[in-house]
Amino acid sequence: MSAARRVGIDVGGTKCLAVALDADGAVVGEARRATPKGPAAIIDTLVELATELGPAATLGVGVPGLVTRDGTLRAAPNLVDISDFQVGSLLRDRLGTDVEVDNDATCAAVAEWQLGAGRGADDMVMVTLGTGIGGGIVANGRLVRGINGFAGEIGHMVIDPNGPPCPCGRRGCWERYASGSGLGRLARDAAAAHRLDAVVAMAGGVDQVRGEHVAEAARQGDAAAMEVCDEFGRWVALGLVNLANVLDPGLFVLGGGLAASVDLFGEPITRWFGELLYAPHLRPHPRLVFADMAERAGAIGAALLPGVHRP
Amino acid sequence: MSAARRVGIDVGGTKCLAVALDADGAVVGEARRATPKGPAAIIDTLVELATELGPAATLGVGVPGLVTRDGTLRAAPNLVDISDFQVGSLLRDRLGTDVEVDNDATCAAVAEWQLGAGRGADDMVMVTLGTGIGGGIVANGRLVRGINGFAGEIGHMVIDPNGPPCPCGRRGCWERYASGSGLGRLARDAAAAHRLDAVVAMAGGVDQVRGEHVAEAARQGDAAAMEVCDEFGRWVALGLVNLANVLDPGLFVLGGGLAASVDLFGEPITRWFGELLYAPHLRPHPRLVFADMAERAGAIGAALLPGVHRP
Repeated sequence: MSAARRVGIDVGGTKCLAVALDADGAVVGEARRATPKGPAAIIDTLVELATELGPAATLGVGVPGLVTRDGTLRAAPNLVDISDFQVGSLLRDRLGTDVEVDNDATCAAVAEWQLGAGRGADDMVMVTLGTGIGGGIVANGRLVRGINGFAGEIGHMVIDPNGPPCPCGRRGCWERYASGSGLGRLARDAAAAHRLDAVVAMAGGVDQVRGEHVAEAARQGDAAAMEVCDEFGRWVALGLVNLANVLDPGLFVLGGGLAASVDLFGEPITRWFGELLYAPHLRPHPRLVFADMAERAGAIGAALLPGVHRP
Repeated sequence: MSAARRVGIDVGGTKCLAVALDADGAVVGEARRATPKGPAAIIDTLVELATELGPAATLGVGVPGLVTRDGTLRAAPNLVDISDFQVGSLLRDRLGTDVEVDNDATCAAVAEWQLGAGRGADDMVMVTLGTGIGGGIVANGRLVRGINGFAGEIGHMVIDPNGPPCPCGRRGCWERYASGSGLGRLARDAAAAHRLDAVVAMAGGVDQVRGEHVAEAARQGDAAAMEVCDEFGRWVALGLVNLANVLDPGLFVLGGGLAASVDLFGEPITRWFGELLYAPHLRPHPRLVFADMAERAGAIGAALLPGVHRP
C-alpha cells in the first residue's frame, strides 16, 4: 500500500542511496545516483529518487554534517560549499510530503535501533567508525538530538589535548585515533619508528602506509601489524568508556566501514573496553555489538526518521 | 497539607541535610544530623530525619556513589565500606512510604532543572565541581539515568591517557584537572616549577599548597595565581566542550563548592569554552550559568526525585 511507503535517502560524498520501506520496515525498493555538485543539483537528484521510489507517505534524508532540527545542513565540507543548505524545506516545497533530515550517522543509529542490532534498546550508543567517527544516541527510549540537533558529534571529543592536530582546529579529537584515518596515522607512526617494515615494503614507503595495508598484513599474521590493530582497539575503547561514563548505555553498536573488519578489531576493542571501563566490578558491562545493516543503514534510518523525530 | 509534603535528604560524608517541600516546591522544613558510621546507623538517622520533617507523601535520598535504578548504593568509599547498601528498600520497609534514591550530583541536577538555574530546559547538563566532579543530564525533557542508573559519571571521562593517575585505577580523568583536588594539583605543579613562590610562602611549603591558597592569592591580585586559575578554567572548559559534542545541551549549570568562586573562575571557564567549542561559528553557544541553590541543591533535588524518576 503506497500510503504507508516510507522513502529514505543517504546522501554520501560520491553517491546517493535510496530505499523504500513498507509498513513493516522491509526494503521494497532501492535506487542510487551519483551525488552531483552544488545544492540545486542535489535537490533535483533527491526529488528524482523520491519520485522513482514513490509515491511515499514520508521522506527522510541523511546528510554528512551538522543538521539543525528544522532540516538545514549547517556545514558539510565534503558535500557542498555553502554554509546553510535548507535541505528539508526545499524538498518539502518540491514534493509536498513530510520530510525529515538528520546527520547520516544519526540515521544509521536509528536504523540499528529500530530494525537492527539495537532493536528494543532504550539506552544505546551507535558509533560509526569510518574516515571519521560519527554517532547517534538513544536514551530513555528516545533519540537524543540536542537543542540544535547536533548531539552525537562524538568523534570530536578531545581525548588528548596535546595530541595531533584535527581539521576542526583543535588537538587530540577521538577521530584522530579511532577512525580509518586514525588507523592510518597510528600505522605511519609505527612505520616511521621502524616497527612495520614489512608493511612499508608492501605500501611502497612510510608515507604510503594506509589502514588497509595494516589490515592486510595483520590478516597474514604479521605480528607488528597486529600490534597496531591492538593499539587501535585501545583508542576505540577509550572513547567508548568515556561515553559509558556519561550515558551508561546497555549497548554499543559499532558500525561504519571499519566495523566490517570485526575479525581484526573485535577482540582488541572488547578486551580494552573491559580493561578501561570505570568501576568494572560494580556494573554489568554494556554489550558491544557490530552493526547489522552495513551500507544500507543510513538510507533505512533516514526512512524511519519521520516516525522517530516526532514519536 | 501534609499529604503533598515531599521530604528529601542529602547524605554527605560528614552530615545529612534534610528538607521538606510543599506542593509548590517551597522549602517548609529543614533538619540536619551528623552522618553516623555504618549502614544500620545511617538508615536510623534517615528514618529520624524523615519522621521529624514528616508525615511525608514521598521521600527522596541523595547519596555519594553509584546508585542502581532500584535504589541500591553499589559503592561509596567515603560513606560506607560495604559494596551493596540497599538504601531504598530498607527505607521503604521502615517507613512504608514511596522512596527514591539517586546519586547526589544527579539530585543537585534535578533541583536546578526543576526549580533553579535550569528551570524549563529540555536539554541541560549539570556539572558539580567539588572534591571530584559529578554530573546530571537532562535530554528530551527527561533525566538521563542510563540502563543501570549510573549515567552522569562525567568526572571519569579520560581527557589525557598519559595524565596523572586517578584513584579509579586509570589515568587522566577529567576530575584530576577540573575539580577542587585538580586545582590543588595544578597549583602544586606550578609551585614545584617556582611559578607560585608567594603562594608557597603563604601555604608553608610546596606540598602544603591547596586550591584555597591559590584562590586567596588570585583575589589579592597575584598574577601567577591568576594564571593557575586560568589554566584551571581551560581544563573545566575542555570537559564541557566534550559534553557539548556528545549531548548538544542548550545549558550547562555549574555547581558544587568551586562554583561559589565564580569571581575567579567564571571568566576563564567561559572564555576557554568559546575557544574550545567544536564548530563555534556554526551553532548558538550553549549557555553557561552557575547554580542557584548552593548547599541545599542535593536535598531539594532528592525531594523531587519521586516525581522525576516516574514522570
